[in-house]
Amino acid sequence: MKPNAYYNGVFTALENIRIPLTDRAVFFGDGIYDAAIGRNGKIFMLEEHLDRFLANAKAVDIPLKMSREELREILLHLVRHSPYECYFVYFQLTRYSEKRTHAYTEANKSNLLATVTEQPMPNIEKALKLTLAKDIRYEMCNVKTLNLLPAVLASRKALLLGKDEAVFHRNGTVTECAHSNIHIISNSVLITHPLDNCILPGISRGHMIEVARRLGVGVIERAFSVYELFNADEVLVTSSSKLASPVLSVDYRELPCPKDGIGRKICEEMLADFVRLTEKEA
Amino acid sequence: MKPNAYYNGVFTALENIRIPLTDRAVFFGDGIYDAAIGRNGKIFMLEEHLDRFLANAKAVDIPLKMSREELREILLHLVRHSPYECYFVYFQLTRYSEKRTHAYTEANKSNLLATVTEQPMPNIEKALKLTLAKDIRYEMCNVKTLNLLPAVLASRKALLLGKDEAVFHRNGTVTECAHSNIHIISNSVLITHPLDNCILPGISRGHMIEVARRLGVGVIERAFSVYELFNADEVLVTSSSKLASPVLSVDYRELPCPKDGIGRKICEEMLADFVRLTEKEA
Repeated sequence: MKPNAYYNGVFTALENIRIPLTDRAVFFGDGIYDAAIGRNGKIFMLEEHLDRFLANAKAVDIPLKMSREELREILLHLVRHSPYECYFVYFQLTRYSEKRTHAYTEANKSNLLATVTEQPMPNIEKALKLTLAKDIRYEMCNVKTLNLLPAVLASRKALLLGKDEAVFHRNGTVTECAHSNIHIISNSVLITHPLDNCILPGISRGHMIEVARRLGVGVIERAFSVYELFNADEVLVTSSSKLASPVLSVDYRELPCPKDGIGRKICEEMLADFVRLTEKEA
Repeated sequence: MKPNAYYNGVFTALENIRIPLTDRAVFFGDGIYDAAIGRNGKIFMLEEHLDRFLANAKAVDIPLKMSREELREILLHLVRHSPYECYFVYFQLTRYSEKRTHAYTEANKSNLLATVTEQPMPNIEKALKLTLAKDIRYEMCNVKTLNLLPAVLASRKALLLGKDEAVFHRNGTVTECAHSNIHIISNSVLITHPLDNCILPGISRGHMIEVARRLGVGVIERAFSVYELFNADEVLVTSSSKLASPVLSVDYRELPCPKDGIGRKICEEMLADFVRLTEKEA
């Protein structure tokens, strides 16, 4: 089996890695992660992903036992040796402790996993079907932790309904999706939930805002309601794995998904950035 | 090493169990658990713990691949072979899937862990020092899942402050502690947060209510404020591992902890029940 993973100093096959059942990741979901896509030995927006990963590690007090440069090299080593045209890089930092106890007593140990798997190229032709789900998550959705059970249950519900993603709403306000951010275009303005503890600061969300500004599209960072979602001119979903996708429907509500709309243009530009910035070196 | 654990059909030593890093418990905290204490080959309030475990498995849609009777037998087998005077039984059900994907596609597989470790006898002489922490947890605190990072961080904060436990409050209302329930006695009435999605339905909380009624103490199930906590006549903390404990202080606020109080009497009765119901068979 090809080494598609790194774990605590060793490059190996992900499928072969075994960990103690007593790992704190198992008992408490005690860890954080990040994920990105890439091509041609490159990782798209890698520095932004590293920034977020390091910030999240700090937020939950888990030490990365190496420098940013070393982490970057591990990720790049993995993707340079991967056979895939387009790949998904997942990296995860967990707190280790042998004895199960809520209050960790060892603050200087951690486990680092990184893995690369095949990923389809982002496809902006695929418009998403969404379903609403109540946002019951904790007040640290800005941190990408392994406490993902509400997202798991909402995603499963979406799958069973034949939908692509679940849209979380809290008291009538749209926050984000189970594993992506969501945005509306209304009166030619892009509206996106502000960065707070209700949403993940998506790297693709940031990329989208930059692209919108480049295209001369106004951007307002404010919460929007389910009603506004249902009545938007266009709806976009962004994530690190799919970049930006148009939205076809939310439950029984069909949404405009114009081929010449602002949202479509943003999707095209984001994909073009990805293709350009991950091109093979001449 | 003595077999102090059961995992997927095998009795073994907990320390020896290795699981695939790709386990959904690692990536998503995708599982539930329960825990109880016991003595002399018995598990205190076992049926109540089994009820809760089965209800929680159902709540997160993870199938237990055996009957309640078989699970009970596994737990009793473990404790009957344990060398400890008093023990802590932990059992956990996680959802297995090989490929990391939020929406699980396999609904018929799970992993069952059970383990027994040494536990000090509940000690009602030990009054607890608490510290307040903001309750940022999700809206399914009534389900005992492995998504425990907020409890981990609050417990660590308590440890660093030299405290025994953290008390969560949400908008001025006390919910519960990081790994126990909390209750106040005010004007001779026991006040405890009602069962909703903000607190775990503690088995010891239920036991406490039953004991209070047996003692003729009025019980009101309603939320109480941080202000009421600070001005309570007595404060009690209950958990399956410690049964009931008096409280000495919350941060800098010292609390009455009378040796002849109602709370003390409840602690004594709960401990007496434990001792009586886990006595050696004649």
